[in-house]
Amino acid sequence: MTDAAVLCNAGKIISVGKTRDALKDPWIKKNKRRLTEIDCGGRVVLPGFVDSHTHPAFAAPRLVDFEKRIAGATYEEIAEAGGGIRSSLAGVRGAGKAQLSKEVLKALHIFAAHGTTTVEAKSGYGLSLAAELKSLEAIRSAAGEWPGTVASTLLGAHVVPPESHGRADDYVKLVCEEMIPQVAKRGLATSVDVFCERAAFTEDQSLKILAVARSHGLSVRAHVSQLTRTSLKRLLAFQPLSLDHLDFVDDNDIRLLANSNTVATLVPGANYFLGLQEYPPARKLIDGGAAVALATDYNPGTSPTANMSFVLSLACTQMKMTPAEAISAGTINGAWALGLADRKGSLEPGKDADLAIFDVTDYREIAYWFGSHLCKQVIANGVPITPTGK
Amino acid sequence: MTDAAVLCNAGKIISVGKTRDALKDPWIKKNKRRLTEIDCGGRVVLPGFVDSHTHPAFAAPRLVDFEKRIAGATYEEIAEAGGGIRSSLAGVRGAGKAQLSKEVLKALHIFAAHGTTTVEAKSGYGLSLAAELKSLEAIRSAAGEWPGTVASTLLGAHVVPPESHGRADDYVKLVCEEMIPQVAKRGLATSVDVFCERAAFTEDQSLKILAVARSHGLSVRAHVSQLTRTSLKRLLAFQPLSLDHLDFVDDNDIRLLANSNTVATLVPGANYFLGLQEYPPARKLIDGGAAVALATDYNPGTSPTANMSFVLSLACTQMKMTPAEAISAGTINGAWALGLADRKGSLEPGKDADLAIFDVTDYREIAYWFGSHLCKQVIANGVPITPTGK
Repeated sequence: MTDAAVLCNAGKIISVGKTRDALKDPWIKKNKRRLTEIDCGGRVVLPGFVDSHTHPAFAAPRLVDFEKRIAGATYEEIAEAGGGIRSSLAGVRGAGKAQLSKEVLKALHIFAAHGTTTVEAKSGYGLSLAAELKSLEAIRSAAGEWPGTVASTLLGAHVVPPESHGRADDYVKLVCEEMIPQVAKRGLATSVDVFCERAAFTEDQSLKILAVARSHGLSVRAHVSQLTRTSLKRLLAFQPLSLDHLDFVDDNDIRLLANSNTVATLVPGANYFLGLQEYPPARKLIDGGAAVALATDYNPGTSPTANMSFVLSLACTQMKMTPAEAISAGTINGAWALGLADRKGSLEPGKDADLAIFDVTDYREIAYWFGSHLCKQVIANGVPITPTGK
Repeated sequence: MTDAAVLCNAGKIISVGKTRDALKDPWIKKNKRRLTEIDCGGRVVLPGFVDSHTHPAFAAPRLVDFEKRIAGATYEEIAEAGGGIRSSLAGVRGAGKAQLSKEVLKALHIFAAHGTTTVEAKSGYGLSLAAELKSLEAIRSAAGEWPGTVASTLLGAHVVPPESHGRADDYVKLVCEEMIPQVAKRGLATSVDVFCERAAFTEDQSLKILAVARSHGLSVRAHVSQLTRTSLKRLLAFQPLSLDHLDFVDDNDIRLLANSNTVATLVPGANYFLGLQEYPPARKLIDGGAAVALATDYNPGTSPTANMSFVLSLACTQMKMTPAEAISAGTINGAWALGLADRKGSLEPGKDADLAIFDVTDYREIAYWFGSHLCKQVIANGVPITPTGK
């Protein structure tokens, strides 16, 4: 729509339409409100991005892994050499909650600088009861200082920590009997995630964790079929809000996804950063009827980016999604993947006033000018933020 | 070097060293100068990027081509359907010089926002005598309003324009007998480029153009081996400053490059945007002894990015260059590719005061945080610019 306006009040959208209609909206007269106008100058305004898969609770970038990978090491070789997820453990376990919270808040500001107003934030670099709780507390504390919206996820089952090497079932027991109950009791997360993969947790272990999470009233999601294929059938029985990565889904998996309410969340930033030639089969998923969301997978090992516009570019150039499909995937479908579609992901009356203003005049330009910093301003829950982050 | 400082005066670098040494530099006492200090707060300072291959003289993004390519059309199919380079002609031919200059200046500011202080700028979307001269005049006019440094290149031989269809030799004659002499006479460019490729100009036509350029005292460069292989032997005889793209070089070409003073300029942004699985063989070139530069190839059809940090990320993740190699390729080797290595591309006494300050503490982070906007401030020829561009 051109010559458009979004009328907001108290953090909510009142109406969306032509500017002339917005200015005559009966709500204004009825409530005798003086309007604060933000003139977008003909620029593109979108609902703020909903980034439904991020890992912001870490202490430092992983520059050594980055150089090792350039020299030819694989994901699993890096992990076996003590790099990968495990190399972020020491930093997180040793960090104070305030320090970790500062890192998360810094990341949240960078997300906002690129147009994201809702962020899913996982723990998963602590991998002990104390360090996972600390990570979720740090996320909660950072979220409290950020105008946007954060949905927290316990990813205690990211990998088996070194001290539980060879005793994965004991670690799963810790996740199920201590982490999940305490997180649920203290309201530290709304969702539980598990990395169901050869190098992490078996399908049986993953299902056990999801079952316990559901029994505690938490939503569930899983990292699956990133490195090797796992049939989605048994995972889908737990009605996950989202299954993520999905590089190795087959036609049968796609049919199952299409017939479910589960969103397929693709994170092509990881494929890009790992230098893989293959990307998740976005076209097959969409054409097969699955709901596809896009997310950054912001994390220090495999996807150090907080820029959703760039993820949209990857979706268009590497996965052949249209710019319109990519925008839907980064907004409303991301909201579905978080169970927040009633409040987030589109510009509709009654939804939260989350808007991103881009310095372009055609929405397709957001994916086109790749690697650019196009976001001019964001409004999160009605609060204007001028981007300053990297 | 940590705790470092760069002492500058009148647009030139006086000294580079430890802060304590800089503050005691005899130059200060001798010249009785009061210093203006820019505190970089421990951040990484690099020589400003030298972007040695860009096409900024165009009027509009090519969003239709972008969507066609997503739907499956190839580079050559888009060109044959009237898209591609030719679809930018109408915009440039119809634009006033002032309008075109405004577009170029806008682009130059975006380059600077990402840390670039020297930009090679080609014509090549006019493809008539008048429109090519207008493009170069627009570049000159924009360069005059920008604190950085612009090196202009005539790319009259980009493709054969539609009105010369089937009469390529006549168009080559126009380039050789009118464009090059006028450009040389009026000092509108320092360099002549040609697109030596199946869909553009034959090797013989290209060599003819380079010979005429050399006879007018201009430097030469060529787009070559992007879509199909051309042996570099005859091109190298003209001592080009740079040969660019080089997706299809073989071992023999690499040997020839290694034994020449010609820089191999790689533009992986084009491979990325075209969704190609293959990238230029940077490792083979470097390991074989060729001097490799990296550039954005900023253009509306195949590489709409002005972000050199992102090109460094592509170099590391997709071409397995180390972060240090990528930085050299985007600074000093780019300067060699423009014949400006005596003034640009490194922080050394006597060189131009072109600096870029990045919001990171380790140089490897510049390629690591992909799709991010890390540049905090640039200084071009001694003039500080605070980034504001997209």
